[in-house]
Amino acid sequence: MTSLLLALDFGGTKLTAAVISLGSNQWQAHRRAFSPPNADANTDIKIMIALARDVLAAEQPTAIGVSFGGPVDFKTGKVRLSHHVPAWENIELQLLLQSEFNAPTSVDNDANVAALGEHRFGAGQGMSSLFYITVSTGVGGGWILNGKPWRGAGGMAGEIGHTVVDPNGPICLCGKRGCVERFASGPYIAQQVKELLQIQPNQGQILRNLVNNNLEKITAQIVSQAAEQGDNLVIQAIEKSAWALGIGIGNTANLVNPERFILGGGVTKSGDKFWEVMRKVARETALPEVDFEIIPAALGDDAPLWGAVALAEDLLKD
Amino acid sequence: MTSLLLALDFGGTKLTAAVISLGSNQWQAHRRAFSPPNADANTDIKIMIALARDVLAAEQPTAIGVSFGGPVDFKTGKVRLSHHVPAWENIELQLLLQSEFNAPTSVDNDANVAALGEHRFGAGQGMSSLFYITVSTGVGGGWILNGKPWRGAGGMAGEIGHTVVDPNGPICLCGKRGCVERFASGPYIAQQVKELLQIQPNQGQILRNLVNNNLEKITAQIVSQAAEQGDNLVIQAIEKSAWALGIGIGNTANLVNPERFILGGGVTKSGDKFWEVMRKVARETALPEVDFEIIPAALGDDAPLWGAVALAEDLLKD
Repeated sequence: MTSLLLALDFGGTKLTAAVISLGSNQWQAHRRAFSPPNADANTDIKIMIALARDVLAAEQPTAIGVSFGGPVDFKTGKVRLSHHVPAWENIELQLLLQSEFNAPTSVDNDANVAALGEHRFGAGQGMSSLFYITVSTGVGGGWILNGKPWRGAGGMAGEIGHTVVDPNGPICLCGKRGCVERFASGPYIAQQVKELLQIQPNQGQILRNLVNNNLEKITAQIVSQAAEQGDNLVIQAIEKSAWALGIGIGNTANLVNPERFILGGGVTKSGDKFWEVMRKVARETALPEVDFEIIPAALGDDAPLWGAVALAEDLLKD
Repeated sequence: MTSLLLALDFGGTKLTAAVISLGSNQWQAHRRAFSPPNADANTDIKIMIALARDVLAAEQPTAIGVSFGGPVDFKTGKVRLSHHVPAWENIELQLLLQSEFNAPTSVDNDANVAALGEHRFGAGQGMSSLFYITVSTGVGGGWILNGKPWRGAGGMAGEIGHTVVDPNGPICLCGKRGCVERFASGPYIAQQVKELLQIQPNQGQILRNLVNNNLEKITAQIVSQAAEQGDNLVIQAIEKSAWALGIGIGNTANLVNPERFILGGGVTKSGDKFWEVMRKVARETALPEVDFEIIPAALGDDAPLWGAVALAEDLLKD
């Protein structure tokens, strides 16, 4: 009898469940649903259990791996909170799923799980050390060191988004000035683009056309699209994002010297200029003796789900 | 028969050899010599071998641990170079000592070795993770993660001194702007003090008295002394050093989330104000959920020598 692994991904807006046979690299079944607009923890859990029952098709999982979009206490599998969905405070997600499906369960936050996914199945296979960074609504990261996840003493490692790269910079959501996230995240890039459009009325024509001159319609996605189409003003904002991320990566290389940086998330799809500036600044910020490479993530939006498979696999090894 | 461990410390200006019985916490013999002013690798090695023969007193060491003040390839025990003493390029120090004393030998750079020393015998005992920082002529660091040294993919981890904390700051020896070391190291503090003395002719009386008004006599040591005696102008410079170090530590806490930071080196002896500002800035730079403590090193100048004992111990375990 082959072992069946159940992989669950609680994203901020999407819920995904999939099953796979141990050792396979193809989903046996895979289902995704949107979290409804006024969802809370309870509705999300109910939807997820229904998705899981659906993909399991009455089979019994051998182990369950779970990615959660928010801080988790890995040792107990207890969710601390969600920044997107209410009522997730102190939910015993591991215990709950363990008793629901009668199978050992492992839960971790999405950045750690995605790092594990890229390491086991994606752009980090065979690496002894890597740092996975997602540049999206926020900027977060996860470590693999000595071939294993490094979560930090309190499970808080990987917060590259809130390392300071310019103490005189603008104020971030977290209250500090000049965090990487304050320059590099999608929403902050969009905000900077709007500010630039207002002071440079003759620039940004490609972007203006994309939103029919309605600047209120500008989102991080549309900004990425305008960047790919070569909008000069947008590229200016993207370069600032890439610069901040480059300093953050260079500093991280000096501190921890991982073999590889793997970058995922929507902002990393903003075109060649983003990658060129980010790589150049990271290289200049790191000492010449510190070697590393920076490459795109391979698993895309499925990285946390593949990481959940890895979590489930690890439960069977222990 | 008890095992005898030989511990060697090649510092920039000092050479130390000591022997200890496995499991003991007291040196059986301990000898130190200065590296002569025009020393090169050969003279240092000759002096060290003589010191070692002296402390060994014709006994045979079971294992040898070595701290070297410069970059080392830990896997092969080959010294890359010394920033202080010429002709150390590509010296096979591990092979050389192994054949000289006919005992297994392990060599690593001083920051990694001091981190290991504090972890095994000093202020980091029992910690699963720590970051040791020395703030002296330079600013360097060494990691313990999951209870073991983390040296980085290329042996370059720990370079907190060359993380950028102000991209618009003054230019560092390494060529970048606003590195931690550019603000926090002893020589740069002394340089800043001299600049402040010239533009504030009525300030810094305590320091001026200490050098009999001869500003050329100002060294990092005298600056520390003036700080302890409460010189206002010096304290201003020390606060800038503490600020930069605090941002570097806060960023490191966000990235790696170690349990404890342990600080050694002359600059950390600059009085309460240094510690107060550094701890405050580090706390403000780290996210509120990231817990850590910052405490003084316990082993002082002997941290690398105790770390060398730990390296020798580990050779017997393997």
